Amino acid sequence: MKVRILSTGDEIMSGGVVDTNSSFLAAALLSLGLSVDRFVAIGDDPRTMGRTISEMARGTDFLIVTGGLGPTGDDMTAEAAAGALKVKTVLNNEALDLIKAFFARKGWTMSQSNQKQAMLPEGSRVIDNRVGTAPGFSLSISGCQCFFLPGVPQEMKKMAGEFVLPWIQQHAGLSPDRNPMDLTPKTITVFGLPESEVGERLKDLPRLFPGVRPGFRADFPLIQVKLYPEPGRGVEGEKAFDQAKSFVVDTLGHRVVSRDGLTMQEEVGRLLGQQKATLALAESCTGGLVASMLTDVAGSSDYFLFSGVTYSNDAKVRVLGVSQATIDRHGAVSEETAGAMAEGVRRLTNATYGVSTSGIAGPGGATPGKPVGTVCIGVAGPDFCATRRYVFSFEDRTLNKQMFAVRALGDLRYRMLKETGNV
Amino acid sequence: MKVRILSTGDEIMSGGVVDTNSSFLAAALLSLGLSVDRFVAIGDDPRTMGRTISEMARGTDFLIVTGGLGPTGDDMTAEAAAGALKVKTVLNNEALDLIKAFFARKGWTMSQSNQKQAMLPEGSRVIDNRVGTAPGFSLSISGCQCFFLPGVPQEMKKMAGEFVLPWIQQHAGLSPDRNPMDLTPKTITVFGLPESEVGERLKDLPRLFPGVRPGFRADFPLIQVKLYPEPGRGVEGEKAFDQAKSFVVDTLGHRVVSRDGLTMQEEVGRLLGQQKATLALAESCTGGLVASMLTDVAGSSDYFLFSGVTYSNDAKVRVLGVSQATIDRHGAVSEETAGAMAEGVRRLTNATYGVSTSGIAGPGGATPGKPVGTVCIGVAGPDFCATRRYVFSFEDRTLNKQMFAVRALGDLRYRMLKETGNV
Repeated sequence: MKVRILSTGDEIMSGGVVDTNSSFLAAALLSLGLSVDRFVAIGDDPRTMGRTISEMARGTDFLIVTGGLGPTGDDMTAEAAAGALKVKTVLNNEALDLIKAFFARKGWTMSQSNQKQAMLPEGSRVIDNRVGTAPGFSLSISGCQCFFLPGVPQEMKKMAGEFVLPWIQQHAGLSPDRNPMDLTPKTITVFGLPESEVGERLKDLPRLFPGVRPGFRADFPLIQVKLYPEPGRGVEGEKAFDQAKSFVVDTLGHRVVSRDGLTMQEEVGRLLGQQKATLALAESCTGGLVASMLTDVAGSSDYFLFSGVTYSNDAKVRVLGVSQATIDRHGAVSEETAGAMAEGVRRLTNATYGVSTSGIAGPGGATPGKPVGTVCIGVAGPDFCATRRYVFSFEDRTLNKQMFAVRALGDLRYRMLKETGNV
Repeated sequence: MKVRILSTGDEIMSGGVVDTNSSFLAAALLSLGLSVDRFVAIGDDPRTMGRTISEMARGTDFLIVTGGLGPTGDDMTAEAAAGALKVKTVLNNEALDLIKAFFARKGWTMSQSNQKQAMLPEGSRVIDNRVGTAPGFSLSISGCQCFFLPGVPQEMKKMAGEFVLPWIQQHAGLSPDRNPMDLTPKTITVFGLPESEVGERLKDLPRLFPGVRPGFRADFPLIQVKLYPEPGRGVEGEKAFDQAKSFVVDTLGHRVVSRDGLTMQEEVGRLLGQQKATLALAESCTGGLVASMLTDVAGSSDYFLFSGVTYSNDAKVRVLGVSQATIDRHGAVSEETAGAMAEGVRRLTNATYGVSTSGIAGPGGATPGKPVGTVCIGVAGPDFCATRRYVFSFEDRTLNKQMFAVRALGDLRYRMLKETGNV
């Protein structure tokens, strides 16, 4: 079974928009056991589109086309698909009703240009779009089942998940056990090892668990290990996946942040919630990034109280109560100052845990013995204050900030597990 | 003149890595006046690669191929290119010397597998890679000049900018005035209008300035307006671009954040530096994001002092000195509380400006009259405290946070310009 993906749009060809739709679809198809053999992207010219659709449909089983279903003059996919099939576009009443219903739900007025979105190639089967105005459609061209979806990622994802992927799953004879939109159960989040090292440690996995193939996705500085069915082999039930997952967790040990694909901030939030504990931060070099990551998680107000982003030394003294003498003696970037920051913010807010970062993200700020990439992290709890110093070598301010932030949450996680006897 | 881009790699086809190289190259080529007509991505199979290279080279002038030049067994691009040209790969001594020199500079030991990276198709011209081990190469296939570059974005960008783009610029007869790697001078940053509205307001630009084509790139919640030469028309000197840029700035007025493509945080940093002013923040709903954005800019420690991420009301009272009565009477999400937060943090830190955010990013937290998407922003300065309330409707926590953060910096910017009589 072969599947290909075509993305259309001048905004992609100008470099203005990065095509993330193809990656999303490929990952979802792979989780069903089907690998995509080709992505193509072209601009909004209907003749090129028609020719490319015909070419790509030949010799493949499924073709997914995204983009060009909008109401404006640039949106020519329906016309191009009709051209590829040598039929006309006609007013599709089912599509028109769906568009009318969408506008009615929103209380908006439908314009003439939206009516154009109901002009579909003769013989199309309509795909409902419940989050936007553009219905999708499917057609068989040269024996290839072609699906046409909007380019707006949130619309495309919903329609792919509700209609296209289940359809392919059924018609390609893939295991019906898997939910194409539910990728997390087969994802393990790892922190603290380079991707090459993770790959090396897991190299026996395909041999030990036939039919299971590991994939790696960098979500800097985390690595996501994903377990896919081996394409072409068929899926041999979910049990092999559960066993393979346990193998990954056992092999990578404490480097595994979450066996359910959670990010570091989600996992830390989960642990805090479980302990009914609260957290306050004192951030210097991370500049608010740790707080921002934590507060990206809905419900974080249950455990996250405060972050003092004390970029200046004056703020460290004034807000957190760090002693000027500590800073003078050891420097702002020191385990001593980091410890005092963590304890200070914990005291200030009555939080269960206080976590601090002080370091040098670069490009400036290095001093003898403290190169760019140095970070000191403090974790204070009910009856301890632990500090550690790390040196990373990314030579990039943003990467350093990200690494420092996840490292700080990783240190908190380690301490929380230790407190509860889990490491 | 036609140009196409081929990306190779199983990691792209599995959805694990999003191909950003093609977008980068397309934007750079467009800034030279050349539009790409097709991106293709395929996996690491050398036969498919060879066939695809032959197909794509036919009927185009330039083909840029990225990926597959590494030292491992998966890296088969040189072999595939040789297959497409029906020649052998041979040890290229120039490439070998470059690899040896790279390892010598790093003080690393070169392995046998790195020697493989010097095996290039007969007749190749070597492209130096000064940031990685994989040299690139170029070849003429069916009259098409083909360039082979590594897939690692930072290596690819450097080699494209130093060698490939200047070569195409020269051989395609494009204006030598433009620097393909210097895209910012032709970018104008806009905030506060939807992309469709920006497009509508600038629709006369191509008619008024023949040879200049506007492009739009969403960098949520900012819009970047980029001015490209019209492909196929040639470039008519830089003057038309300067005039077109002034037209954009005049037409969009105070919605223009920067006529030099700076982000909001860079522009605010620039203004603070210019005024020798300092800034402190009191963030509730943005959860540290404003601070993190500001501190992404190198040198921000010159003007950024502190952010109090006061997620809990207790922290608002205890750290910022907001009166409990204000919160009780007006709620945490109110212009009154936002004003008190901005004044409180300014007082606490002696900063020139204090800026605050308090709002509801969602999905929970809405109250009657205060839907998800509501944000109150306070800006306090030497002799003023201005507050405003906005309601956005993204229904997405992360998008709301981003919009709130840029809106807060936008309000500060407006006040700073007003103070200096610039609006």
